[in-house]
Order: sequence, then C-alpha cells, then structure tokens
Amino acid sequence: MTDQTPPGEAFRPDARAPRGFADKRARDLRAERAILEAVSAVYERYGFEALDTGAFEYADALGKFLPDADRPNEGVFALQDDDEQWMALRYDLTAPLARFAAQNWETLAKPFRRYAFGPVWRNEKPGPGRFREFIQCDADTVGSARPEADAEIIAMAVEGLQAAGLPRGAAVLKINNRKLLNGLLTAAGVESNGQKLSVLRAVDKLDRLGVEGVRLLLGEGRLDESGAFTKGAGLAGKAIDSVLDFVQAGAASRSETLSRLANVIGGSAEGDEGLDELAKIDAALTSLGVAEDQALFEPSIVRGLEYYTGAVFEAELLLSTTDDKGASVSFGSIGGGGRYDDLVARFTGQQTPATGFSFGVSRLTAALRAAGREPGGQARGPVVVIVFDQTHMGEYFSVAGELRAAGIAAEVYLGASGMRPQMKYADRRLAPAAIMLGGDEIAAGTVTIKDLDLGRELASGVADNAAWKAERPGQQTVPRGELVAAVRKILLGGGQ
Amino acid sequence: MTDQTPPGEAFRPDARAPRGFADKRARDLRAERAILEAVSAVYERYGFEALDTGAFEYADALGKFLPDADRPNEGVFALQDDDEQWMALRYDLTAPLARFAAQNWETLAKPFRRYAFGPVWRNEKPGPGRFREFIQCDADTVGSARPEADAEIIAMAVEGLQAAGLPRGAAVLKINNRKLLNGLLTAAGVESNGQKLSVLRAVDKLDRLGVEGVRLLLGEGRLDESGAFTKGAGLAGKAIDSVLDFVQAGAASRSETLSRLANVIGGSAEGDEGLDELAKIDAALTSLGVAEDQALFEPSIVRGLEYYTGAVFEAELLLSTTDDKGASVSFGSIGGGGRYDDLVARFTGQQTPATGFSFGVSRLTAALRAAGREPGGQARGPVVVIVFDQTHMGEYFSVAGELRAAGIAAEVYLGASGMRPQMKYADRRLAPAAIMLGGDEIAAGTVTIKDLDLGRELASGVADNAAWKAERPGQQTVPRGELVAAVRKILLGGGQ
Repeated sequence: MTDQTPPGEAFRPDARAPRGFADKRARDLRAERAILEAVSAVYERYGFEALDTGAFEYADALGKFLPDADRPNEGVFALQDDDEQWMALRYDLTAPLARFAAQNWETLAKPFRRYAFGPVWRNEKPGPGRFREFIQCDADTVGSARPEADAEIIAMAVEGLQAAGLPRGAAVLKINNRKLLNGLLTAAGVESNGQKLSVLRAVDKLDRLGVEGVRLLLGEGRLDESGAFTKGAGLAGKAIDSVLDFVQAGAASRSETLSRLANVIGGSAEGDEGLDELAKIDAALTSLGVAEDQALFEPSIVRGLEYYTGAVFEAELLLSTTDDKGASVSFGSIGGGGRYDDLVARFTGQQTPATGFSFGVSRLTAALRAAGREPGGQARGPVVVIVFDQTHMGEYFSVAGELRAAGIAAEVYLGASGMRPQMKYADRRLAPAAIMLGGDEIAAGTVTIKDLDLGRELASGVADNAAWKAERPGQQTVPRGELVAAVRKILLGGGQ
Repeated sequence: MTDQTPPGEAFRPDARAPRGFADKRARDLRAERAILEAVSAVYERYGFEALDTGAFEYADALGKFLPDADRPNEGVFALQDDDEQWMALRYDLTAPLARFAAQNWETLAKPFRRYAFGPVWRNEKPGPGRFREFIQCDADTVGSARPEADAEIIAMAVEGLQAAGLPRGAAVLKINNRKLLNGLLTAAGVESNGQKLSVLRAVDKLDRLGVEGVRLLLGEGRLDESGAFTKGAGLAGKAIDSVLDFVQAGAASRSETLSRLANVIGGSAEGDEGLDELAKIDAALTSLGVAEDQALFEPSIVRGLEYYTGAVFEAELLLSTTDDKGASVSFGSIGGGGRYDDLVARFTGQQTPATGFSFGVSRLTAALRAAGREPGGQARGPVVVIVFDQTHMGEYFSVAGELRAAGIAAEVYLGASGMRPQMKYADRRLAPAAIMLGGDEIAAGTVTIKDLDLGRELASGVADNAAWKAERPGQQTVPRGELVAAVRKILLGGGQ
C-alpha cells in the first residue's frame, strides 16, 4: 500500500480487479438469477426455508473441513479481527449451516430444512476459468436420520436441475452409501481408517485409470507412464476382488443394483445398514416420482470429502461440450452432497444427523448453454430514444416514459454524440428499436421507429430481400398514439 | 487460532457468528428479495443493466473515499494476497464501479448505465442494529454530464421506492447542487477548500442545531451544553447571512425554490451553472412525470461525501416509528447519491462525468414494516403431512408430491417424534394445514385435513364461536381426489 508516486504527481492506481475475481455482466447475471429463482422455487415447494449467514465465520468454527484440501485453515481468506479473533470468509455453505444449527438448536423447529445461495471464497491459485469467488446453492435437512430425508434431497436436486432448464436426460443423480464399502472392508478384516481412506482414493480413480489401474492401487501400488510410483492400499487379493466387484455392481435400475449389491456386501452390520438405507431411499424416490433414469445407485461414487458418513450423491451431466480445439469434453459433476452426521457435533458434542446437496451456479450455467438453453432467455436491450435536438428533450422523455409505463424498457440517449454514434450505441445495447422524433414528426404528431432487430437480421443475412431493397429497411412513421403498439409488434418479432 | 483444548479431549469451538454479522432468516430474506426484485425491474425498465463486481478490490483502487471516515484504508476489511498486494472487501458499490468503468472504458457502450446490489462490508465497531455487512442497491450513469442523467436517477429512485412498496407520500427525494454553495462562497471571497468544507459541515447540522446554532458554526464557533467548543468556519457576517438565506430557500415546489435561489445565488459562474443544472433537472423531472411532492429542491442537503461535484440527492422518509420506549422517531435518510465527476479520473486521469443513487435494503425493509407493509407479503409455511405409521411413508410422499405438483409447498414430517410434537412442528413452521392419513383413511380412499390457520385464529380469539365449539375445529375428511381443492380453499382463507 506504499505510494511510490513521484512528488508533485497525483497517484494513479491501476484499474484492475484482483486476481481470481471476475466482474459479471448482465448476461451472466441474468442466467445466474434465473437459475437461482427456479431452484429456490423448487426448494420452497418442498418446505425448505431460506437462510443467509454472513460472509465471515470465526476460523475455529470453519474447522479443517475445507473441501479438496487437507490443510487446516489454508485455502481460505482469513484476517484477524480487532479483538484478535481470526475470521475467515466462508468457503462453502455447509460449515456456516453447521455453526448456525449448533448455535440455535434449542429454538429451531426440527428437522431444520433450509436452502441457501450466495458467494463462497477460496484462497487458491487462480487460473483461466478458475475463480476465487463463486456462487453455490445448497439445500440441507438437519435433524433427520431418515433415509427419506436423503431421498428428498435427491428428488429436489433432480427437480431443481430440471427447473433451471436442463432437459430431462441431460443429467443424472448418482447415489452411493459410505457404509457399504466400509462394511465390506471391515468384513474383509481392514480396520485402519488410513487404509480405508486409501481404498476410497483408489476407487475414486476408476473413471481415469479403469479397473486394472484401481486393482494396482488397491494392492501394492501403481507405476504410471511417467515413472512415478503411487503406493497402494495394501489389500489382499480376495479383498481387492470384493472391492472391484462392489464398484462394478451398478446397473441400469436402482432395484437391480440393490440386488447385485446384496450379493457383494452381505455379512457386516454396517454394510447391511447401508443396504437398508439405500432400499428406503429407493422406495421414497419411487413415491416421489423420481424415475430410474433420473437417480441411479452407483457404487463407484466416492465424493472427496472426509466428512460424509452415509449416503453420498453426485449430479453428473450427460452432455458433452467441445473445447478450444474442437475436442469433445464431458462436463462431469455439477454438484453433489451426502449425509454428514458429525458436523454439528463438532460444536455441541452431540451427533446430529444431517444431509444436503450443493451445486455451483457457474458450472450449471455453462452446462445449460452447452445444451443450447440460455438461462433467463436471450438478452434484450432497451428501446433507445434518439436525441436530435436539445430543445425537444421533454418530448424524448415523455416518449420513453410512455414505453416504460407499458412495461417496455426504454431510455433517452444521454451522451454527447451525434446521430450515427447514437444508432451505434442503440445497436450495441441490443436495442430492439430506436425512436426518432424530429421537428417534423413533433409538428405532425407522429413518431419514426426503426426496427433494429430487423437491421441485425439484414446484416447477418437472415431477413428477406424485400426489406433489404427498401430504402430505409425496417423504418416506419406512425401516429404518436400508436407508438406502444408498433414497438410491441417489433418486440414480438412481428416487424413492420 | 491456538487450540487450548486439554489433551485427550476433542476441541469444541463455540458456535457463534462473528461480531457484527447477522444470520438472516426466511422472513428478512423474503423482504430483501422482494425489494431488490421490484427495484431491479424499475432500473431495467430505464435501460440500466446489471453488473456485479467481486467482493474484493485492491486497496489502492478503493482509495480514501470511504464514506463517513476521513481515515484512508481504515474501516475496511483488508488482507494481503500471496503476491503481497493488499486487497479489501468493498465498502460500497461506487468505488468498484469506478474501477470497472476505468478498466473497460474503451469497450463500453457509453453512457454506461448499470445497477448493482449486494453486500458491502465495513470494519467498524458493531452495535445493536449496527452491522458490519449489509446490502446496498445502486444505480449509476457513467459518461453523461447532462443534468437529465441526474433527473433520471432521481426519477428511478422515486419510482423504485414506490415499486418496493412505500406508499406515495411516505418518502421524498431532496435535491441540491454543490455548485450553488460553492459559487456563493467564492462570490463572498471564500477561496480555501478547508473553509468551504467547514461551511458544508456546519450546514449539515441545520436539522440538529437550528439556524442559530449553524450561524455560530459559520462564524467563530459554538459552545455546546457540555461545555465543548467547536471551532467555526470563520465567515464574515455578510457571508454568514448569505449562507443562511441560501439554506432556507427551500419551498414547496421546485419552481418556487428555483426562483428564490436565483435571488440568493446570482453572481458567480459556478453558482449560475448550478442553477442552470437544477432548472434542467426540474424540466426533465416534469417530463418524466415526477411530481413536486415526490422530488423537491432542498438547499440545506449536504451529503457527507467529499467526492460529490454537482447535484446531490437524498431520499428522506416522512414516516415516523416508535422506539423501545414508545417515543416517536423519524426515520430520516434511507438513501442518497449525487454527481461525482472525479472518481473515474483517479484511475485514468481524465474527468468522466458520473451520477448515481444508493440505498440500504435493511433500512428500507424497516421503513416498509413501519408503514405496515411487509415486503414480499406475509410468511406462509408448507403444508405438513403427519407421519402416523412408518409403513405408509410411500402414501405420505405421494400426498406431498400431489400438493407440490399443484404449486403448494408441502413436506412430509421427517423427524422421529410422535403425533403431538408433529402438530407443534407444523404450527411453528406456520403451516396452513396438516394432512393426516391413517390406516382407516387409506382404506377408505380419504384424507383428513386440519386447518391450522383456523387453529391459530381460534387460539388468538379471532374466529367465531361455532368453530370453537366443534369437537375438532377446522378438521375435515375428504375423498383423496379432493385433497388439492380443499387445501387450496384453506390457503385462500376460505376454511372449511
């Protein structure tokens, strides 16, 4: 913050946004708001209430549950308050919920069902498309141990993604339960949590390395093409086979997967519990009208977070898009969640069952655009009233006011430029029409309207030849009383 | 962040929000969103586009324009990035706009008209009702020096407050122009900026100290009741009279105030410029349909910020409310703004005209509530489906699904408690109705609906006696096919 300006000169800071922070313009904000509005409506219909905690939490309350990082209190934006307490900007919406629930547990109507959306911040290395501030949208139920609570969260995720505009079949919810693999490993004699975590990490690589790669990581370890060696989980051959049977038990229907899993898992109390929970989730999903192709059981789903204790879910996009070089890229996960029964207990010491789902709004926006659906619809600028003559400003404002009173966005050009730059301004604002009102029009009680949508179509070769050949394509002069009707016709795409 | 937990015990953080940060529940969020949606619609109808900059700015870009504080880089939440640059959370939405406009000036369609809303953060001492994070909502035009741009901002503020639900007559926009007093002082021989600022500070106290108190502060100084002496601006007697004539020139109509001001101000180029600007603002406001009682010229309006360069505006509530002790308290200002032609120039070195208005959403919410208007309407909980019997969970979910498909918020109770606590839960959630579905109902194809709105009315003595005397007031059993219609009737207030 030192000012190194030479004496006598005013200090001029560089106009730049901090690294990893983006300015969002109207198009992205319209998309974001349309998505959040549609999803919020779904959540409210399920009886979830809105909650917004502040941007900061005390660092000790955030704990070391930072996703995708094993570094406590790293990866966050932290600062010390003037009473010496460390505060950090929230890195997700779950940790603040756990704090809120613990703080207000006695007075909340339980189960406590809330949804939330807003920015979260991660102090990570920024990069192209990798921001340090982004919008998450979550729904959670705190205080219900019932598998039906998980099912409801899954049903809302399915319905929410569809309400946001994702066509049916474009995404699928994949469901698993941590207790299954845990039970299987316990039955196979694996006791150490460290070893169980190594198994989870290995399974998580199934997509990338395939069955044989995961087999190596479950056993002694794997040497990759670059010559680097990854130490394995050290399972014995029989346990490796069980794990691989398990992760490949996914089928096209939930009931089919359930019966396959029953064959693989059976034997441990924890595994049986996991199976029973999945069966109840299946039944509730069916009652809620969630079809087999919308939410599947997928035993290879891991979810990176250590804090999940039971069911885990992941929303996977089935769309693919193309990268800069034209190659097809699958979108992958756009959200996830699961059951975390220990998070509130960090504060209270009492286990409090909880389950929830979270998705990132930018990724969903990108997905919707890749599916050819602009969230919130196409951009529309205001009608621009051209300023010919300073003495008629009053007329111009009246015209704009008339249009606005009819619900049509409109503005009088308020810059200092002449006719041509004004038309260019209107075009850049994506104005559907420009209104021209000279002395002649005012005297005659008329108004001239230029259809700029048509102009853009002509420029791009979409519109027909007749309009092209007209001397002033898309330009019409109408009685002042017909202004609103004529503009409305242009807005509806009717042109002249 | 030191962990002083005794060895062997898990560390348990206190569950508490950081000082000065509030958790917002559904009622406040519904109010906030309703206001922002209504106001955004007005801004968009005027052709303003949405913009959202990130939470952080580089500290040098924020500059020393912190409102209500002359301390550069104090009052903000700042931290050092890993590349040593200081960043701070935005304390308002104007400084980030100035940075954005400077950064993108070449490519923006100009004038650039944007609105924005979101949290801002101030690192100040928190207190009751005094938060360190709050929501602001702004509209600004950058790149137009025209007084009509100011008029438009004023018209939008008037219309926005009304759209948010403030009844006409509950608020007034008060308008002044910095150039008037500046010109008057220059004409009176006052040259020093320090002295001019002292005059502004004295005038700003007119409400609190009255004309005679301000007279003292314009002259040698003022001794208050506690014996403390405030040094005055040191004006001579004639200049003091001019200033006092000026600040008392406000009349009930804009045109009347204009002609009074012409008598007081005349003589300096800057004063005449200010007068001319006000006249143009008046004409534009009239064309825009803003009545004399909605936007007034008020020469005593100062606005604290040093950065205003011309017109200044303040939205003042004419409502009063009562405090804890029943005393009447006037709400005062709920927003303000003005013309700031130098803010973008901090970055570019080129003067760039700009004007805007900002209001705080919590204050407006409080004002609307004081006016008896709950923004977003009264709270309504979901219909709660009571769980009698675990074996019928599927039925319960179907019923909830049917209601939701009809657009009615509904949920199945997913806690572990019995009948009575479930009814209590439904009541606390402000559920309009509870659905009861036992074995008998399922066998008979019926459903029992309890009208909880009526229950609440009975409890508060509002409903009639007949219902009170009934054995199960507000309870009805209807064929399953009539479920949605019966619930809808309750929602519409029709009861049985």
